[in-house]
Amino acid sequence: MTDTSVPATALEDIRRVACVGAGVIGGGWVAHFLGRGYEVTAWDPAPDAEARLRRLVDAAWPALEQLGLAPGASADRLTVTSTLEEAVARAQFVQESAPEKLGLKRELLARLDAATPSGVVIASSTSGYPMTDMQTDAVSPGRLIVGHPFNPPYLIPLVEVVGGDRTDPEAVRWAARFYEAAGKSVITMDREVPGFIANRLQEALWREALHMVAGGEATVRDIDRSITEGPGLRWAIMGPMLTFALAGGEGGMAHMLDHFGPSLKSPWTRLEAPELDKALYDAVVTGCDDAADGRTIADLVAERDRGVIAVLRATGRLPGSGAE
Amino acid sequence: MTDTSVPATALEDIRRVACVGAGVIGGGWVAHFLGRGYEVTAWDPAPDAEARLRRLVDAAWPALEQLGLAPGASADRLTVTSTLEEAVARAQFVQESAPEKLGLKRELLARLDAATPSGVVIASSTSGYPMTDMQTDAVSPGRLIVGHPFNPPYLIPLVEVVGGDRTDPEAVRWAARFYEAAGKSVITMDREVPGFIANRLQEALWREALHMVAGGEATVRDIDRSITEGPGLRWAIMGPMLTFALAGGEGGMAHMLDHFGPSLKSPWTRLEAPELDKALYDAVVTGCDDAADGRTIADLVAERDRGVIAVLRATGRLPGSGAE
Repeated sequence: MTDTSVPATALEDIRRVACVGAGVIGGGWVAHFLGRGYEVTAWDPAPDAEARLRRLVDAAWPALEQLGLAPGASADRLTVTSTLEEAVARAQFVQESAPEKLGLKRELLARLDAATPSGVVIASSTSGYPMTDMQTDAVSPGRLIVGHPFNPPYLIPLVEVVGGDRTDPEAVRWAARFYEAAGKSVITMDREVPGFIANRLQEALWREALHMVAGGEATVRDIDRSITEGPGLRWAIMGPMLTFALAGGEGGMAHMLDHFGPSLKSPWTRLEAPELDKALYDAVVTGCDDAADGRTIADLVAERDRGVIAVLRATGRLPGSGAE
Repeated sequence: MTDTSVPATALEDIRRVACVGAGVIGGGWVAHFLGRGYEVTAWDPAPDAEARLRRLVDAAWPALEQLGLAPGASADRLTVTSTLEEAVARAQFVQESAPEKLGLKRELLARLDAATPSGVVIASSTSGYPMTDMQTDAVSPGRLIVGHPFNPPYLIPLVEVVGGDRTDPEAVRWAARFYEAAGKSVITMDREVPGFIANRLQEALWREALHMVAGGEATVRDIDRSITEGPGLRWAIMGPMLTFALAGGEGGMAHMLDHFGPSLKSPWTRLEAPELDKALYDAVVTGCDDAADGRTIADLVAERDRGVIAVLRATGRLPGSGAE
């Protein structure tokens, strides 16, 4: 543990965030941090980057207002710098959102590490590279973490946080607390898995969708409608595991696995399923019990129903709800 | 085209629906049709079926009230019969929701076909069997269709409608119109694909989730949170295709594919991706243009932002929104 890998600053004293890379994701981070009242410095090598970034922030501002601006939050607190070094020189947290190219990420993180004050955590928005593979060229790899957001970062709460082999575990814990303080919803992973969690799940869905388009089995429009009119309504409320537990009726996940377990052998997707052996069966059932946190199946059904109705109403899909 | 395969009844004259099989899905159908004002006859061979069904309808009723009951809708319009034949004797539409066992479905559909008045469409709630494989033993296979709902059928609008090789196309068209009239959102498929559309998509996600649990890569709780705090919020508003188009920024899906296309080679899920050749690239890009229906990327971003904020507020995930 060196003095460059452990953040010394208290969360409430963090006021200055640097965003490096200001495309869709980096710009979304800029909007998020501005909305939460931070001073943001941003840098992006593209010639039209500043104009694009300011357009993105302007477009996001009505959403940020509805989400609730922090005291003092203002788009005027954004400074676009002409060099990477200027952007991070006084930063207390750095979020890197460069294109997904491993060589580029490696080199950029090494440059950021060299230019950022010691004791400041540097997070990468990478969609899937393990930090272990990206931190190779940095002098202080201990402060480099993955903080993987979802588009748009100012609106979708989730950030997946994970370190690499050479990351200081304290940097991972600090980053998780910082993101929570900055209004994000954090999942901290204890190991590096390509694509993390949510991207693995949506990538499986996306690949199956591409197979269906490639095979002429469904149109893009049908695929989108099949989600927004179907499982997507449930997934805003309750994840896929508890959702499926409710397909088991009063018997919950155990009954669902007894009933639909054989479907894992069906060609319902191009993805081969794992063997549903006793260990996996038990892990899923007890995992659902744990996730239910004492709520009974009837509680969960009532919660889902209230939630889906709220979503249907909020999105104008109930009769007479358009005016609400 | 025989007189037994073409529904003669006008949609507005359909008042009596039979639900055969009254578990989670069949019972959900019962609740849906009751809420929409139909007279429902139900049959299920389980000894405790009636008590379970009435509990399910009672539990669903507050949701049905909020969804908006049709004039005259009442749980009193439910009759549970002691034989299958009584249930369908006067039915104008039949929804079969028996367990997912092919032999059972085949035999049951043949029995239903024999007992149901001619000219009445019989739909199966099967999660994945092609009707071609289920209609083998029926005398009038022309009127047998798949009408695949999502749990719970009284709340999730989607029904996937598709016929088998021996189904009269007119029965498919009539069923699609009937379901729409009964308040469902219909996708009609022109071919049989195992698992239809939405189940293929959620099955890919589910299998990947099982792999992650089996490998100890993520807990059930993390998997669920990664969806409800992440992509699930978007999917209630906009399907996976248009959602990903917005990851391409002002360049839309074409830019997204240019940027993230290489990720299809990454081990981000256990599902192998199709080759992103020019034909697939073009099909996805033009499919998204088509699905956007003239909305620009900026329009879609604004729509998504409004929708996600509405969902966050409706589900109590915005500060101060709990009381709303």
